[in-house]
Amino acid sequence: MTCLLLNATERAQLAMMLEVSAFPKPGNVDRCHDYPETRLEHFLASTIFARSALEEAEHGKGRIGEIIKHAVRDTNCHKGGNTHFGAFILLIPLVYGKDIDGAKVAIAKTDVSDAVAFYKAFAMTSVRINAADELDVNDPHTLTLIRDRDMTLLDVMQHSAANDMVAREWVTGFRLTRRGADLLRESGAGRESIVRTFLTLLATEPDTFIIKKHGLATAQETMLAARDVLDGRRSAEDLDAECISRDINPGSIADIVIASIYIALGEGWSWDS
Amino acid sequence: MTCLLLNATERAQLAMMLEVSAFPKPGNVDRCHDYPETRLEHFLASTIFARSALEEAEHGKGRIGEIIKHAVRDTNCHKGGNTHFGAFILLIPLVYGKDIDGAKVAIAKTDVSDAVAFYKAFAMTSVRINAADELDVNDPHTLTLIRDRDMTLLDVMQHSAANDMVAREWVTGFRLTRRGADLLRESGAGRESIVRTFLTLLATEPDTFIIKKHGLATAQETMLAARDVLDGRRSAEDLDAECISRDINPGSIADIVIASIYIALGEGWSWDS
Repeated sequence: MTCLLLNATERAQLAMMLEVSAFPKPGNVDRCHDYPETRLEHFLASTIFARSALEEAEHGKGRIGEIIKHAVRDTNCHKGGNTHFGAFILLIPLVYGKDIDGAKVAIAKTDVSDAVAFYKAFAMTSVRINAADELDVNDPHTLTLIRDRDMTLLDVMQHSAANDMVAREWVTGFRLTRRGADLLRESGAGRESIVRTFLTLLATEPDTFIIKKHGLATAQETMLAARDVLDGRRSAEDLDAECISRDINPGSIADIVIASIYIALGEGWSWDS
Repeated sequence: MTCLLLNATERAQLAMMLEVSAFPKPGNVDRCHDYPETRLEHFLASTIFARSALEEAEHGKGRIGEIIKHAVRDTNCHKGGNTHFGAFILLIPLVYGKDIDGAKVAIAKTDVSDAVAFYKAFAMTSVRINAADELDVNDPHTLTLIRDRDMTLLDVMQHSAANDMVAREWVTGFRLTRRGADLLRESGAGRESIVRTFLTLLATEPDTFIIKKHGLATAQETMLAARDVLDGRRSAEDLDAECISRDINPGSIADIVIASIYIALGEGWSWDS
């Protein structure tokens, strides 16, 4: 028996759960590593609490911006801070549209109300964007600006795409999500495949969460280090230890891997090796 | 913010997730230890897949025996074998009745149809009871016997109570579940409290899953070893390593701890330290 008859909500929850359990995932919370404030069980609890918002997306109940806000509201009740905000930005449209093509149709239909709801969701998280950004979430004028310019949520993502690889997925038609799903299917079933996909994306794409925190040079250094792990010149455990000691956590690539697992599960990839 | 507004289904899912993530839990699958065939992600996936059956219990849709069968059917689709059968025997009536008093009322109302559904669920699992038992699940005459004697599911549990501490919970009014919930609340918030509760029950109650597999002497030896850990004469990690090497896994106490976490969460105990 395999679990092929999962609905989109269950696939999304399974994707969130599998991603955080996979190890060793250099720098991120995983089965064998917590951050002081954010622990494995915060991510797992968030997986459970996200169900209601994911079901809204699956059944098309409401608009995407509002549903992202619900997901943040429902998963923000623990002390672990932001756990899956980036993942929801990807999963909600994907679940809403069922797959990448459907998600592209859905995000093209977002309007200013989605953008406003999204910024309200953003304000609920502990994620802080570059203060130099004119759409700064901390600035009360941001909502006025969005309304005045009649920006859609896709416009907001377009605005953020240069500096945020999660937002960029909306603009590029989920390019890296697609690539991660292909990597999973090529790497075979089970959790080793998730680790390999994570490392491959880490070796080929500068993680924008690392860039925001430590600058481009550190992100590029991490890419080279991930390449060393893939080529067997270094162990994943060793890179993990270095990332942890330097507080380097590739959180955006983790978000994309979650979206990739969701897509791969829908295409018959098996998590159960 | 805390997550106090969880419904019964979410509390049950959270209980399953917190129990398996807690570590070090001597002998069982935990955050840092898999069995070759049964891994952390099997338990976590089962937590997600159990939702539909838990919601049936929460909303009183259908009878308890049938709902236990649904829980087993929906969580049996992975390759990890039986993950939460014992937990469902406790959680389904607890969620159905909301708390221990409600569960006692609910199990008193079970009839022969519940017993029949339960045995069908049992047959779907890889759990095997003592072949000498006249209610052997492998014996096709068992269902005839249950029907002929008009046994309720509570009768079946009464029959099994001597050799199975999970079944015994039905008969004793969830005595150990209650004790575990009290221990959790006394030990304070968070996962250390779960480990302490697990060890305390392990030190004071012979685990019937160990007895079935290795005999009473091994179960008693494990109790003394757990006492040594509680008294600081031995590390939990050391006992864990010994249990793993000897294939001693206190699976029934783990099931009871899940039920205890469910009850404690409903009484305001915080998982989030």
